[in-house]
Amino acid sequence: MSFVVKMNGALNDGIHSKGMNGNGVHHLSVRTHVSVNPAKLKSNRPRWTVRPSEMSKKTLNPIRAIVDGMKLTPNPEKPMIALSIGDPTVFGNLPTDDTVLQAMKEAIDSHKFNGYAPSVGYQKSRDAVANFYSCPEAPLEGKDVILASGCSQAIELAISVLCNPGDNILIPRPGFSLYKTLAVSMGIQVKHYNLLPEKSWKIDLKHLESLIDDKTACMIINNPSNPCGSVFSKDHLHKILSVASRNCIPILADEIYGDMVFSGCDFQSLAPLSSDVPILSCGGLAKRWLVPGWRMGWILIHDRNNIFGTGIREGLVKLSQRILGPCTVVQGALESILNDTPPEFYQRTISFLKSNSEICFSELSTVPGLNPVMPSGAMYIMVGIEIEHFPEFQNDVEFTERLVTEQSVFCLPATAFEYPNFFRIVVTVPEDMMIEACIRIREFCSRHYLPRSLDSHELDQ
Amino acid sequence: MSFVVKMNGALNDGIHSKGMNGNGVHHLSVRTHVSVNPAKLKSNRPRWTVRPSEMSKKTLNPIRAIVDGMKLTPNPEKPMIALSIGDPTVFGNLPTDDTVLQAMKEAIDSHKFNGYAPSVGYQKSRDAVANFYSCPEAPLEGKDVILASGCSQAIELAISVLCNPGDNILIPRPGFSLYKTLAVSMGIQVKHYNLLPEKSWKIDLKHLESLIDDKTACMIINNPSNPCGSVFSKDHLHKILSVASRNCIPILADEIYGDMVFSGCDFQSLAPLSSDVPILSCGGLAKRWLVPGWRMGWILIHDRNNIFGTGIREGLVKLSQRILGPCTVVQGALESILNDTPPEFYQRTISFLKSNSEICFSELSTVPGLNPVMPSGAMYIMVGIEIEHFPEFQNDVEFTERLVTEQSVFCLPATAFEYPNFFRIVVTVPEDMMIEACIRIREFCSRHYLPRSLDSHELDQ
Repeated sequence: MSFVVKMNGALNDGIHSKGMNGNGVHHLSVRTHVSVNPAKLKSNRPRWTVRPSEMSKKTLNPIRAIVDGMKLTPNPEKPMIALSIGDPTVFGNLPTDDTVLQAMKEAIDSHKFNGYAPSVGYQKSRDAVANFYSCPEAPLEGKDVILASGCSQAIELAISVLCNPGDNILIPRPGFSLYKTLAVSMGIQVKHYNLLPEKSWKIDLKHLESLIDDKTACMIINNPSNPCGSVFSKDHLHKILSVASRNCIPILADEIYGDMVFSGCDFQSLAPLSSDVPILSCGGLAKRWLVPGWRMGWILIHDRNNIFGTGIREGLVKLSQRILGPCTVVQGALESILNDTPPEFYQRTISFLKSNSEICFSELSTVPGLNPVMPSGAMYIMVGIEIEHFPEFQNDVEFTERLVTEQSVFCLPATAFEYPNFFRIVVTVPEDMMIEACIRIREFCSRHYLPRSLDSHELDQ
Repeated sequence: MSFVVKMNGALNDGIHSKGMNGNGVHHLSVRTHVSVNPAKLKSNRPRWTVRPSEMSKKTLNPIRAIVDGMKLTPNPEKPMIALSIGDPTVFGNLPTDDTVLQAMKEAIDSHKFNGYAPSVGYQKSRDAVANFYSCPEAPLEGKDVILASGCSQAIELAISVLCNPGDNILIPRPGFSLYKTLAVSMGIQVKHYNLLPEKSWKIDLKHLESLIDDKTACMIINNPSNPCGSVFSKDHLHKILSVASRNCIPILADEIYGDMVFSGCDFQSLAPLSSDVPILSCGGLAKRWLVPGWRMGWILIHDRNNIFGTGIREGLVKLSQRILGPCTVVQGALESILNDTPPEFYQRTISFLKSNSEICFSELSTVPGLNPVMPSGAMYIMVGIEIEHFPEFQNDVEFTERLVTEQSVFCLPATAFEYPNFFRIVVTVPEDMMIEACIRIREFCSRHYLPRSLDSHELDQ
């Protein structure tokens, strides 16, 4: 039991609820009807019936929904290896840089960052972000930056300002589950456009464009991608922008993994490639600076043709006033974090992620029945399962469930990303753990793999 | 111009947008219509028309709406004194305790609080809050605590889980503007119940009860009160609970100023007084620990009769997953902040606030035309204006506007709290500033005060 609770905590990538499920939040559902004298009441109120709102009921976390239904009992003879956690900090092998921690301590010692900041952030902190991301093709000033409580709130603000209930948004499949969670909770429909694993997870552009209708309020482009680890080429980004441009659809660019790309590959932000499509680019400190818990995110407003106009900007300011901005201490440290973190820190992280990705890819690509797709960035590998060769399992959920039972290795079934018969591996774990996990996955597959016989191509050989 | 911008930043108490208005977020509203070939489009999409959502348009900040319309040009011969800022940190005279800062630095040095926490907070931090607020009459465990990004998000989560669009909530008048801002943005109606200045801002209970109907989803009780500085007696709280109990209305208790009450007065939290009314009590570090920018708030779930049941608890967990919780560094420091801050720190703050309140009250209560109401806690004094004695001014907005022009003293007109012909003074400013401000207010009033003559009671004397 205690293990299941621990597991629950170890599954998420962004959407967390550690210790929630097994740990007492679920009360007994005995309702007590308190005695009421109806004669005293003006209204026809019923007795005590306090029900959760429709919005809370519509706020669904698919990762939780899937994982909570899985039996995750590891093999007691093998220590657990969780390749499911989208949090680079859990194993201690990827600490943030000392510069980052020092900047925080200086912000605390300055005594200057304890009061309220403006709801969109200190001007100086916004200036620092603008300065860090500005480029000649897509210049940014402080006024173009909205600080938020993590990239999650940045995405929430962006969806909230662009979409009304009844609208639809286009989101990637496979894709990060938060987009759907947020949209559906607000009464916004989601339409999934396909990514193509055989083309390094490029967008199926025809499919994307076919989904657009009068109610399409924005398209979310996630690059580099969670869960795919893919990085779009400049050429592909131009084609995406063409679709947006000729259909007049603004873009929400989730670029939280921006610049986390492997050597030999180049990250290109969307905004500098377009002068007409208005773009809200969301990012934050979480991944590149390895401090996801600090909840420092931002929206960069790219609107060189003034299509958003004042309305969207004012809307973002208004929405930010609902809960005010991110923690002022982190805001106070932001300028120094952005400007003083040594380039070697970023390089070290990326080299590690690339090396681990290569180990994982080369190990699993020789396992019969598995088809890993080599990533170019971020912290993930998607692995396809030739499910017809594993007749004991109906799908990726059963496959990954049994992988826990037998080998104590947990990978997130990609059904959680609306993409069945794949699973996602997080490559931030220490190298020896990654190697051991691959060995166990190989053993698991060789035990359950059933080559097609007689009627298949093996006969031809 | 630059002053106006600075002023804007200095007005808020919670809802901030410093540097937003004058500072470039308002672009020119020139819309560029990008050339589109309609033949290529499947849909009948118009050209570029990206409009802010209805929700963003419904997110209204009354303080901004009022203050942005005021001409706030101070008298150049007198240095500005802002008595409008609900942020105790701005003048440097009320620093937080060193224990609090030390706890933060230890959390940073531990390297343990950089990753994701569960969306409702670390179990250990929730346990610490539960332990701090638990009492025999209203016991709390960690599972009863939801951490949030400031008390604002705590209130937002509480309203979100209890109310549907079309419901109504009961809120105090005068009262903190965020309640209405949040509710209206979610399509929830607000009904104001009256506080009675002549009875130390007690609730008009008959009025409160008369507002309840079938659609009433909750009542917000703010104690101690912003903007009144009032503190309800135990007896009065019992009567409030009776109204809630016999009408079966759950309570959202905004107790962010809890324990910030002057000597001779006693703060009584609502929950221990009731065993049947389910209560979501919202609080945080902002005021008592003097770090409002850190955005650490919480909801304490009091539901001893199990009326909320699992639904409300699960709903809160789900809603918290939208943007995850507060900054993990502050969460990591929380246990030490709550347990190790010396009692003398709280006492010092309260003594200062009481002393400044007494200075302000005794000065202004002898000014003809003004009726200050002595507070018992929090950081505010409300001052009534006998507006019929100031014929030059239509209302509190004009009165406080001219007070800036002539005396360079800015107080927030209580129209911002739905309570015309009062103004609110924040008593956190240094003592000499408070004294000087009172002198100037007296001078201002004596210049503009017109005693009633002939037809009034003066004839009788």
